Amino acid sequence: MPNSDPEPAPKKELVTAYLKKVKTKVDACIFDFLPTTHEHPDIQELYQMILDYPQRAGKGLRPALCLLLCEVFGGDPKRAVNTAAALELLQNWLLIHDDIEDGSELRRGEPCLHQKHGIPMAINVGDALHCKMWEMLYRNTEILGENLSLKILSEFIQLSNQVVEGQHIELSWVHNNQWDIDEDDYLRMCIQKTAWYTCITPCRLGAIIGGATVEETDAFIEIGKSLGIAFQIQDDVLNLIGDVGRYGKEIGGDISEGKRTLVLIHLINSCNPPEANAVIEIMSHNRDEKDETEIHKVLQLMKKYNSIQYAQQCSTKFLMQAAEKFKQDFKHVPNNKAKQLFLSLIHFFVEREY
Amino acid sequence: MPNSDPEPAPKKELVTAYLKKVKTKVDACIFDFLPTTHEHPDIQELYQMILDYPQRAGKGLRPALCLLLCEVFGGDPKRAVNTAAALELLQNWLLIHDDIEDGSELRRGEPCLHQKHGIPMAINVGDALHCKMWEMLYRNTEILGENLSLKILSEFIQLSNQVVEGQHIELSWVHNNQWDIDEDDYLRMCIQKTAWYTCITPCRLGAIIGGATVEETDAFIEIGKSLGIAFQIQDDVLNLIGDVGRYGKEIGGDISEGKRTLVLIHLINSCNPPEANAVIEIMSHNRDEKDETEIHKVLQLMKKYNSIQYAQQCSTKFLMQAAEKFKQDFKHVPNNKAKQLFLSLIHFFVEREY
Repeated sequence: MPNSDPEPAPKKELVTAYLKKVKTKVDACIFDFLPTTHEHPDIQELYQMILDYPQRAGKGLRPALCLLLCEVFGGDPKRAVNTAAALELLQNWLLIHDDIEDGSELRRGEPCLHQKHGIPMAINVGDALHCKMWEMLYRNTEILGENLSLKILSEFIQLSNQVVEGQHIELSWVHNNQWDIDEDDYLRMCIQKTAWYTCITPCRLGAIIGGATVEETDAFIEIGKSLGIAFQIQDDVLNLIGDVGRYGKEIGGDISEGKRTLVLIHLINSCNPPEANAVIEIMSHNRDEKDETEIHKVLQLMKKYNSIQYAQQCSTKFLMQAAEKFKQDFKHVPNNKAKQLFLSLIHFFVEREY
Repeated sequence: MPNSDPEPAPKKELVTAYLKKVKTKVDACIFDFLPTTHEHPDIQELYQMILDYPQRAGKGLRPALCLLLCEVFGGDPKRAVNTAAALELLQNWLLIHDDIEDGSELRRGEPCLHQKHGIPMAINVGDALHCKMWEMLYRNTEILGENLSLKILSEFIQLSNQVVEGQHIELSWVHNNQWDIDEDDYLRMCIQKTAWYTCITPCRLGAIIGGATVEETDAFIEIGKSLGIAFQIQDDVLNLIGDVGRYGKEIGGDISEGKRTLVLIHLINSCNPPEANAVIEIMSHNRDEKDETEIHKVLQLMKKYNSIQYAQQCSTKFLMQAAEKFKQDFKHVPNNKAKQLFLSLIHFFVEREY
């Protein structure tokens, strides 16, 4: 870690142990809530399909951010578990629909839901889980009272609008076969599609439940933007050089799917025009028309022009921005365990290998 | 009308005039709420896609039920407009996803959204509209206060669970190529997939906002089930014998899509075994493999065995059940204009030609 990080960062083991602890609590909440049996066999089948993605091993980063921030502001993280679980349901319905939209094959090491049951059923399962998310948020009225529950609903509404807009931007690029995308376009899409639901809202929710002021809560918009960008770039990098067993998606899947990533944008801007044309042509093919050789060729060029390395540096830069702003904005908050763990956790966003 | 209906039913013109009036109010609310412009051209494009289905001419039956019931119980229908508008948003996001799931071609006289923009974008537009529905319901806090708004949210949650379950039952039949479906199976699917969002919840919402008791509100579960079944059967009939210009979908589209309808179930149970096998074989083909001759053959058999007529009789029977139960359960409510108009409106559910 660079010198700008004065506290000795608690070990990575502390973070993984904390993630595991949170996941156990949040999973218990989710599986206690989602229905499992029904006397009608078709509805029982739907319930099993709804459980599929939540049962696959996710990292649980979003719930961890939420519970940790609640603690940072002196709240009881138990009161935030239901809201953190709703963040996981959000993540899962988004992934089901996202996997269809991108024509993906693997998710968390297993075939995507639409690969198992076809697109029509998978769309409906995503919708079912989406509805369950609002139901879970409605339960907050019992846990947090009406006023706070409505505040949290409002956060989810704001977040949902951001995600579908970010998703549309990315789908438009694919639909229009658009390649004249610069870093700013990419970063904007990242903020809307990833940063809001991965970082900004989880942090804001934890802060709100923990009793933070409006000003403190709003600080997480900027912090979460930088952190979300760092997270997404690292995700793009892992998609290229990760280990399929740990990462859970096809390696190079983003190339197959024609995804615009920071790595790719750097490559197109760095290589010579014939290479750029070749890359764009390969990327524009439908995934069925792409063979291993083509994917390998793009990957080789990314390595030749240090595009992966460039993206990794950017990811670290955005992480440091987030960490610095957090330390700056929350100087007044006691430097307790939760605060230290938050800083370690966000480093994990970039250091993770899965 | 049979003799069991003692009041002289107000003319059909009163109903269509009322539907028009409600639609004007509800549309104004929807188009005032949905965003139209954005500085980012891709997001602006998303907003236009979100507006597409709501701008196509729907009948507005669900909002009409909601506003009318509010009036029946002495409430100010103005207070129910925002909730009625949310029912329209629900209808529209469901239709966008439903049209993809069924592989439909036309909706309200125009190509389905996924036919215009592809499946990935259409899924996301449906999700965007779905999120907007919850946002619209959140606005009720300003109009109706926190307590009543939460009650209404709870109604939408209950309803959503019913719809996705009913949808899954129907999708399972198609996915498993299942044809041993009896009337009870069909009616159950109808209640979950159609009756809840078309009748039960719109009536309940109007009643709740109008100030009805829990007992009065709950009476609309049974009334709405019968009414919803009557509505769906009439929809199935119009799909076979309607006028494409007024009905807005392909005539015979349900046959192309292999839909299980009451008409089809009656046909399979009435015709001889070789005919039944031929019908099932045609119905099992993918829509691309079906030609006009095959669709015509099924339609001819439906006419030969009076299956369409049978369905029309069933539809009327369920309508009469709904009307009788309404009159019985709400004897104590003054026989005002709204109450009379409600009875005329539900007759329209079956008498309509579009």
